[in-house]
Amino acid sequence: FSPVKKCSRGILERLNANEVVIGDGGFVFALEKRGYVKAGPWTPEAAVTHPEAVRQLHREFLRAGSNVMQAFTFYASDDKLENRGQTLKITGAQVNEAACDLAREVANEGDALMAGGVCQTPSYLSCKSETEVKAIFKKQLDVFIKKNVDFLIAEYFEHVEEAEWAVQVLKMSGKPVAASMCIGPQGDMHGVPPGECAVRLVKAGAQIVGVNCHFDPLTCVEAVKMMKAAVEKAGLKAHYMVQPLAYHTPDCNCQGFIDLPEFPFALEPRILTRWDMHKYAREAYNAGIRFIGGCCGFEPYHIRAVAEELAPERGFLPQASDKHGLWGAALEMHTKPWVRARARRDYWENIHPASGRPKCPSLSSPEGWGVTKGHTELLQHREATTAQEMQHVLERQKKAKSAV
Amino acid sequence: FSPVKKCSRGILERLNANEVVIGDGGFVFALEKRGYVKAGPWTPEAAVTHPEAVRQLHREFLRAGSNVMQAFTFYASDDKLENRGQTLKITGAQVNEAACDLAREVANEGDALMAGGVCQTPSYLSCKSETEVKAIFKKQLDVFIKKNVDFLIAEYFEHVEEAEWAVQVLKMSGKPVAASMCIGPQGDMHGVPPGECAVRLVKAGAQIVGVNCHFDPLTCVEAVKMMKAAVEKAGLKAHYMVQPLAYHTPDCNCQGFIDLPEFPFALEPRILTRWDMHKYAREAYNAGIRFIGGCCGFEPYHIRAVAEELAPERGFLPQASDKHGLWGAALEMHTKPWVRARARRDYWENIHPASGRPKCPSLSSPEGWGVTKGHTELLQHREATTAQEMQHVLERQKKAKSAV
Amino acid sequence: FSPVKKCSRGILERLNANEVVIGDGGFVFALEKRGYVKAGPWTPEAAVTHPEAVRQLHREFLRAGSNVMQAFTFYASDDKLENRGQTLKITGAQVNEAACDLAREVANEGDALMAGGVCQTPSYLSCKSETEVKAIFKKQLDVFIKKNVDFLIAEYFEHVEEAEWAVQVLKMSGKPVAASMCIGPQGDMHGVPPGECAVRLVKAGAQIVGVNCHFDPLTCVEAVKMMKAAVEKAGLKAHYMVQPLAYHTPDCNCQGFIDLPEFPFALEPRILTRWDMHKYAREAYNAGIRFIGGCCGFEPYHIRAVAEELAPERGFLPQASDKHGLWGAALEMHTKPWVRARARRDYWENIHPASGRPKCPSLSSPEGWGVTKGHTELLQHREATTAQEMQHVLERQKKAKSAV
Amino acid sequence: FSPVKKCSRGILERLNANEVVIGDGGFVFALEKRGYVKAGPWTPEAAVTHPEAVRQLHREFLRAGSNVMQAFTFYASDDKLENRGQTLKITGAQVNEAACDLAREVANEGDALMAGGVCQTPSYLSCKSETEVKAIFKKQLDVFIKKNVDFLIAEYFEHVEEAEWAVQVLKMSGKPVAASMCIGPQGDMHGVPPGECAVRLVKAGAQIVGVNCHFDPLTCVEAVKMMKAAVEKAGLKAHYMVQPLAYHTPDCNCQGFIDLPEFPFALEPRILTRWDMHKYAREAYNAGIRFIGGCCGFEPYHIRAVAEELAPERGFLPQASDKHGLWGAALEMHTKPWVRARARRDYWENIHPASGRPKCPSLSSPEGWGVTKGHTELLQHREATTAQEMQHVLERQKKAKSAV
Repeated sequence: FSPVKKCSRGILERLNANEVVIGDGGFVFALEKRGYVKAGPWTPEAAVTHPEAVRQLHREFLRAGSNVMQAFTFYASDDKLENRGQTLKITGAQVNEAACDLAREVANEGDALMAGGVCQTPSYLSCKSETEVKAIFKKQLDVFIKKNVDFLIAEYFEHVEEAEWAVQVLKMSGKPVAASMCIGPQGDMHGVPPGECAVRLVKAGAQIVGVNCHFDPLTCVEAVKMMKAAVEKAGLKAHYMVQPLAYHTPDCNCQGFIDLPEFPFALEPRILTRWDMHKYAREAYNAGIRFIGGCCGFEPYHIRAVAEELAPERGFLPQASDKHGLWGAALEMHTKPWVRARARRDYWENIHPASGRPKCPSLSSPEGWGVTKGHTELLQHREATTAQEMQHVLERQKKAKSAV
Repeated sequence: FSPVKKCSRGILERLNANEVVIGDGGFVFALEKRGYVKAGPWTPEAAVTHPEAVRQLHREFLRAGSNVMQAFTFYASDDKLENRGQTLKITGAQVNEAACDLAREVANEGDALMAGGVCQTPSYLSCKSETEVKAIFKKQLDVFIKKNVDFLIAEYFEHVEEAEWAVQVLKMSGKPVAASMCIGPQGDMHGVPPGECAVRLVKAGAQIVGVNCHFDPLTCVEAVKMMKAAVEKAGLKAHYMVQPLAYHTPDCNCQGFIDLPEFPFALEPRILTRWDMHKYAREAYNAGIRFIGGCCGFEPYHIRAVAEELAPERGFLPQASDKHGLWGAALEMHTKPWVRARARRDYWENIHPASGRPKCPSLSSPEGWGVTKGHTELLQHREATTAQEMQHVLERQKKAKSAV
Repeated sequence: FSPVKKCSRGILERLNANEVVIGDGGFVFALEKRGYVKAGPWTPEAAVTHPEAVRQLHREFLRAGSNVMQAFTFYASDDKLENRGQTLKITGAQVNEAACDLAREVANEGDALMAGGVCQTPSYLSCKSETEVKAIFKKQLDVFIKKNVDFLIAEYFEHVEEAEWAVQVLKMSGKPVAASMCIGPQGDMHGVPPGECAVRLVKAGAQIVGVNCHFDPLTCVEAVKMMKAAVEKAGLKAHYMVQPLAYHTPDCNCQGFIDLPEFPFALEPRILTRWDMHKYAREAYNAGIRFIGGCCGFEPYHIRAVAEELAPERGFLPQASDKHGLWGAALEMHTKPWVRARARRDYWENIHPASGRPKCPSLSSPEGWGVTKGHTELLQHREATTAQEMQHVLERQKKAKSAV
Repeated sequence: FSPVKKCSRGILERLNANEVVIGDGGFVFALEKRGYVKAGPWTPEAAVTHPEAVRQLHREFLRAGSNVMQAFTFYASDDKLENRGQTLKITGAQVNEAACDLAREVANEGDALMAGGVCQTPSYLSCKSETEVKAIFKKQLDVFIKKNVDFLIAEYFEHVEEAEWAVQVLKMSGKPVAASMCIGPQGDMHGVPPGECAVRLVKAGAQIVGVNCHFDPLTCVEAVKMMKAAVEKAGLKAHYMVQPLAYHTPDCNCQGFIDLPEFPFALEPRILTRWDMHKYAREAYNAGIRFIGGCCGFEPYHIRAVAEELAPERGFLPQASDKHGLWGAALEMHTKPWVRARARRDYWENIHPASGRPKCPSLSSPEGWGVTKGHTELLQHREATTAQEMQHVLERQKKAKSAV
């Protein structure tokens, strides 16, 4: 066993060899439940203030089979940290550095790569210029270069234009770049379809494209399929990634789970079981996606389920499977015969689990402008909560139109 | 801030002063999801093999407001470890010692007591003698005395007789003893009602009585109310505790969530929200229960919700509330106005969260003998999976009857 | 085939011979859906204004297997007709006479008895005297005697005292009297348990006792079981009847389906299938009930299902079974193989039918005082919508107490 | 009030004047529940054997506001009557004649037209020739001409080719022809989209086109919208009709409710409320549809709800509204204040009615080949239950392809 040697095999090397690369889960939601992230701002200062909690979560995902330790840098840009009430005297650079150190430390404990990531910025949404927005990304990238990350991820973008800008910045590093948008089959917030988004991101330089967050696994796989079809139709080449929610969201509109009335504090009944994850992993694999991970709601056992489903293809089980009877096999040791009878694959594959909540519905009605208005109106209003912001949005709209 | 001084105040001192003591959550389920406990055997050898994972979970509950660091000794008796396929060369004593050290280490970081616990044994279920069963408990108690635990918990007993034996053993230590059965309002597996169970446990020497596991919070509070009424009617005095599931289980029969078809791998849709926990904490408090904690399914944010609900009574918030806007207040910083509109108490108090699973029912039908047979038949059959075991059960029945 | 001869066998003759007597369904709900009864007042003037519609419904129940043509006289007392906005110049006597004629006409077409019925009065609820209330019943009874009904039914009483008065009046006729209260296992509106109600009604002279309306079939059967047990324990003898709703109401409180938010215009998702009715008929039969019918929500096919389930006991099928393949057998002629596969008993016995309404819950929360207050408060407030009415209620309360 | 005069205004006269024409409900399902139609064969011999039952149902729909008395001739072709186990010595001609007489009799009692209808034949499905299939329709048409129907309806066709043949035959009469297919937005069983179906039917001579049966109201309105858009795009002119199910079917595949596991004996939880019908009527009207009626599951009160919703446009209420407080207004007379509080529009518009069935799901999985196979495979297999039938289907396929 030689972690150093293994880690020398980069993300593209693995994907080019058609290997499955398993991502990790969403840190902000997992650490919110553990008491280290504040829902609302969702900022990652815990990398500095409570490194033991962040390190432990990395370790759990590593044990569960993850090959990517993504530094906990979500929303760690300075404009976000200022904007969302971050009053601690901790800079974005400090957070990014601490997060990289933790991710690297745990990555070195196993067969995992370490990645740095950027995501959408308040600056873009308040209509700052391309130069200003790119400067934000550049500042984070400087840390990632200093810390010598294995590859870079631009993720959680609702606007393909901003995602392109991010890819263009990250490409400057010479490292492999993955680009992932938080969109579903309906496309980005301007109504740009997933396929067109993917083509633009590949052209911008991303070697891996896909989607993350906002929708449940099967919806995300569907969107990535559309990306793959368009990229291939355009005669381009790319690898594909998917990192969905661990929540069932069949009732979402184009903006995803944020518009569901349960977001973010009553999503529990929607949490996927491990068996739902088996199905997800198989669907993603069959769709030709090879970078398969998770986002908000994923706990280590969800990632383990992905790794167990794809064990035949990968040839091995993750460490944490030592503590798991495949398909419930360990229930054979239970004292009650009817519980022992659950120790089989078809039992869990076919279960329709009850909610225990007879006064609750199965589906909700999404809220927000996305429900009744089209993409254009949505764009105009979505972040424009002051008259000034509205002015910015309208200007951007005009500029965009004249550019066409 | 003086943790040493605080900790010098024992469990009875606190309860006698009518203070609220907040328990922790269920370690086996939480650590199963994190990859350190195997569902089926549910044994706690991770205290030895992965102390960092156990320590981190203790810390999270401490931050969330827990005043009790219960050593991770569930099912850590030798007969259980042997019985359930524990092949590691780790003895029960090693597990119990390691678990005590971890609990003490974290308890010392805050205002928490450290407790050691015993629970029901395979020996009792296979009809070993009182002497043999008590020897099992004594072996664990020896470690707890050596490690100088602050108090002792006898928990997760389905048979009041075995619980009495446990209390009798633990009392030998001279330390405070809490006794908690995993029963609902229907009573124990012989049909002994909760009230009678409580009276017997108090008479056996328990200073604190209550229920844990097997049922959802409101059902457990109901059972403890019955205990309190009976103890008071008998002219006895006791404190009360409740540590329920974090799963909605209105469809359980007398044996609790184990008989639900979703147990243990598809319980996700039943997980309580933090707002459900507010309601639970208030109900428990109003019922006169002062030791309020959790069992299987509880994550740190559930315990934090208990602590936040009871903050007016206790006079302070837990540390982890630094990372939580009370009643969703931190959503006021969200960019979307309809999400900001969720930053208020009545929104979350009245939400009926959807499951996102339209092909699933709200309730299930429990499985097992408990469904169609009475308590006596259940007892005869429940663990008797071989002819020999059946013989033992019948003998115990006969003995019990002649004793009456 | 000799209907005249058959009809000469009275209700008690049949029940004494342990025969099953099948009732009909609820006319007010069925005719409301057909456009002849106004929900709210629920009065039966259609017997006069649209006899063809009433006759047709009788015929359908007769074909379906009903042995009792109950004259459509529900709420046909003069005080009710006046009270509820009846502006047509039709007297209660006219309605009662027309209803009797229609019921007799159709009863004579088959093996059915004809019954007249009285139900609770506004007079009782507004605290009129025993004399006044009895006069109301007497006025209806005069018509029933004139029309020579085969037996009498006092039904839909929420207060056992008023039911006793009704029985006492009806007994004057010398005809057999059945008494049925609209209560569940929790008892009448004063909290008098079903068993005590039944004993009092038998002592008042009823030969048949039971419950109708307000609750779903299995709940009603449960209440009648309690009646039967109490009557037998009291050393009395009676026959038993049950005529429940055709709506699933597991979420009702003591006042039944009226307090459900869906009453009366959104009860559709709760309608029982024919297969639910098979289960009901079997449960009722097994409980020793021999007069088995229906109330609100019952359509002719529901009664047919009762008759088909009990065909082995009765020795024959109803006429309408000519148009029904037992247990779906006629689906064998369907062109699609997967629909043909539904032509079997176990398919329909085990189906869990979907609602097609994913945004709706499974259970509701009842409204009204019964939810949070006890029986006494409920009684004080329930009909007291003016200060004067309240005065009456309080006086009745006082009188009742001094009588004890 | 002059019914004779009113009836002299034909269907096209009314539609050309942009009047709303309200259809009736589905007779086979309504009469099945009343005990006169056998589910499986679904044949209408009751027109001969139980005319009083058929007449009464016509009357109820007339009272509810229907302007069309459609003769009860569904599946009344000789090939169907033979094919489906009709053993009575009643010919198709007898059924069609009796049905026409009943419809005319009731139509003359109000402002209603009388229509005769044909629907898809077993002959087409077993690959009989165009000549043979048309002969079937012609035989029914002969009766309709003899009985001087006001207009003709070709309805419940899954294959546009057969529907065209029917229209071509009916056009020979010189009477107005309406053509309605039992398809949803996915199109007919060959995958021909609704728009193309409509254009072909208009070209074949239909003056009114639309859909009926198989799907819930909003789905059907959606399909008719697609028809309207295509007809207008083709520069053609037509009127539009919609006669959907009264069942919620969001979980259907392309073949509609027949493939749902609840068909036909457990559809109860899916039944629309009257308030759902208000919404349907408004949607249909807003879509430009003017012939608005119902199919399977519709009861008279459903049609009344359509008439009440469109009363502002039509200028009058139906007769049966005498027995209905608009939007629940008559509940104002209820004794309980919380029930009186339901006497308002917004209460009923916003209710989410519970099913009372917590062990049932919200949605089902359709069965059959349509689920996993495409339209072509479906067509090959759908009726081919014997080797010979399969041969016929394949031949028809080949012929269809060579014709393109």
